[in-house]
Amino acid sequence: MDTYSFARSQELFVRAAEVIPCGIPGHFSPAPLVPPTAYPFFAEKGTAAHFTDADGNDFIDYMCAYGPMVLGYDNEVVHDAAARQRKLGDTLGCPSPVMIELAEKLTSMIAGADWAFFAKNGGDMTDYATMIARAATGRPLIVAIDGGYHGVSPWMQGLGHHGVIAADVAGFVRIPWNDPAAFERVLDEHAGQVAGFIATPYHHPTFADSELPAEGYWQRIRGLCDKHGVVLIVDDVRCGFRLGLRGSAEFFGFTPDLACYCKAIANGYPISALVGTEAMKGAVAQVFYTGSYWYQAVPMAAGLACLAELERLDAPARMQEYGRALTAGLQRLADQHGYELKVSGVPSMPYLRLTDDPSMMLHQRWCAECTRRGAYFTSHHNWFMSCAHTQEDLDRTLAIAEDAFAVLEKSPEGQRGS
Amino acid sequence: MDTYSFARSQELFVRAAEVIPCGIPGHFSPAPLVPPTAYPFFAEKGTAAHFTDADGNDFIDYMCAYGPMVLGYDNEVVHDAAARQRKLGDTLGCPSPVMIELAEKLTSMIAGADWAFFAKNGGDMTDYATMIARAATGRPLIVAIDGGYHGVSPWMQGLGHHGVIAADVAGFVRIPWNDPAAFERVLDEHAGQVAGFIATPYHHPTFADSELPAEGYWQRIRGLCDKHGVVLIVDDVRCGFRLGLRGSAEFFGFTPDLACYCKAIANGYPISALVGTEAMKGAVAQVFYTGSYWYQAVPMAAGLACLAELERLDAPARMQEYGRALTAGLQRLADQHGYELKVSGVPSMPYLRLTDDPSMMLHQRWCAECTRRGAYFTSHHNWFMSCAHTQEDLDRTLAIAEDAFAVLEKSPEGQRGS
Repeated sequence: MDTYSFARSQELFVRAAEVIPCGIPGHFSPAPLVPPTAYPFFAEKGTAAHFTDADGNDFIDYMCAYGPMVLGYDNEVVHDAAARQRKLGDTLGCPSPVMIELAEKLTSMIAGADWAFFAKNGGDMTDYATMIARAATGRPLIVAIDGGYHGVSPWMQGLGHHGVIAADVAGFVRIPWNDPAAFERVLDEHAGQVAGFIATPYHHPTFADSELPAEGYWQRIRGLCDKHGVVLIVDDVRCGFRLGLRGSAEFFGFTPDLACYCKAIANGYPISALVGTEAMKGAVAQVFYTGSYWYQAVPMAAGLACLAELERLDAPARMQEYGRALTAGLQRLADQHGYELKVSGVPSMPYLRLTDDPSMMLHQRWCAECTRRGAYFTSHHNWFMSCAHTQEDLDRTLAIAEDAFAVLEKSPEGQRGS
Repeated sequence: MDTYSFARSQELFVRAAEVIPCGIPGHFSPAPLVPPTAYPFFAEKGTAAHFTDADGNDFIDYMCAYGPMVLGYDNEVVHDAAARQRKLGDTLGCPSPVMIELAEKLTSMIAGADWAFFAKNGGDMTDYATMIARAATGRPLIVAIDGGYHGVSPWMQGLGHHGVIAADVAGFVRIPWNDPAAFERVLDEHAGQVAGFIATPYHHPTFADSELPAEGYWQRIRGLCDKHGVVLIVDDVRCGFRLGLRGSAEFFGFTPDLACYCKAIANGYPISALVGTEAMKGAVAQVFYTGSYWYQAVPMAAGLACLAELERLDAPARMQEYGRALTAGLQRLADQHGYELKVSGVPSMPYLRLTDDPSMMLHQRWCAECTRRGAYFTSHHNWFMSCAHTQEDLDRTLAIAEDAFAVLEKSPEGQRGS
């Protein structure tokens, strides 16, 4: 099987580095991609579950733009709805009526959601949720999970990261995932000081296996929040609409006070949302929060169309099914080649790891060999399934993965780790 | 002259309030609009310098979506560039090459800009700039201006606002505008602790006159920053490209280390940018910062087209000229009717106030009477000019304003204040 070359991506990267710090900053940075020479850096075009890079290479995309692509790139239904709204207006001086329709749609879909508020970034909503929890309770502290990702604000990054000072994290206490006893200890030690608890529906750190909530975990957290008057915030930015259309909290059997959405709302059109219960509405109204493009109507129209499509396609079930077939197929191939491929998280957002080499080098090598053959696999982050992935994509992906396993075996690094 | 009715806007607002806290939250809230019955709440369509509200009323728009609309709503040149990019890809798994082109464009346009970084909100960039200043200096404190607006993060809102705790503002010191001696005192009192100074190019608070920099103000601030190794940050989110195409700092004769842009980059397509000097590039590269939609290619293509149009039209000069004609005409009318209309700020972003009534009620009444006749004037915020405003718009606006003055005189509130 031929492997791709990335000459134009690399040229573009050199050009980018002249005028953009890091060339490509943030989560699209090639820095965690090992070896970077196996990865495309710039994309030219997206169609369905595929994208074409700057060198004309075609990829079956398992990152889905790190989540926003949920129906497939260049989805006609979403584009048409967006185009209809664009003919009317987009960023205007007042909101467009479509804002109400989208709020009505989200509150009708998501369990326990009585209202919705719109912004641009997922982090806009996780930041806002912490402010609302403080306003609602008059208390300062927010409890979060060690290694939990909620965006890039200083408190989210944590002390030790560049640009973060001690005051940024003074209002936050971190506890381990799946440890309600630790939460209880914080509630005791900081009695009457805890405003909110924030976590993702399950734990999906980078460079580590995902961890689902233990049996009864969320019910215990919900009970402790109720007992102590703490606002329960779910950060559904990454998982939202990939576990269930009524929200990931409903999927795990509990109701949060506030839930943050972003990536999958509008198939890549930029919008995020906070939803919550009637009891929170007064506190939300108190906390001023706004942005220059937050009333942009086109992403709202795109969101309405995208959510309707997700319902029509029973999207979470479809993505879970594809993810199960994909990961089972990959595990079978790994087994045939004498490796163990561990799959964690949920099938629509699986985190994969070849366990045979604890250094991750073998796993990185395998992901890289798949990517340079056309199956875009990153090695350190959960993947994302979409509704656009087809049986043909699956068959091709498994053929690529098999080829990559065969290449691993031929190299000294392909030997099982100690 | 007939006045508008807003029955459908009001119906929609009631419907919105069911599913959105405050109905319309943030800076689009009707709350500061007095009386709210004179204002539209929902917009259906925008064209050139006009928008049509939910009741079908047509307005000459002097808020320009609070800044993003700079070339006119529904601008074909920007839409076409966006559409061409959309056919390729928008939110993909890698950046598109257009990101490099936009960075090259901004660095070639803006004086002292050696690189660019892209996000969504203006506040993304002001927050990031403070993190970079701290990373670059290893110091904690940021000096900002009393009443200066930089977005809605807790530190930007300040203690006393709902949801803000003491730790949020612990790393910030506020000083008055136009007071370099106050900055000097902070530098003395917190020797070796000040990382950055952030301010808008001139002071444009809400509910108060705008204040331009005093002669030599920025040069003195620049000198103090140089002397003490402090990072000088200009928040050009609101003024950017309405004073000069080489940046508002150049307009006032100095060079910042970092400058934040947003509103006018892409005529309403959602993008913000941080630019800065070569000396800052290393610190930027250190501070991780990212968002789900920050690599979205369509707003970048729109930005390239918008910036080229701004250059072609010599946009700042055009907007300043329209603003001068508008404000001079309004002042002449005020004078003829026995009122004093004070104009502050710059002509492309004037802040207006009828001084005859210190309570602002007379001014609010006049703005409302203009708005309900089709000239969209808010009473508490600077207005925005665009390149799409025409002589016909100006003539119509002045006719409306005259009619509004005549109405004021007929009412008891129209008498000069004490």
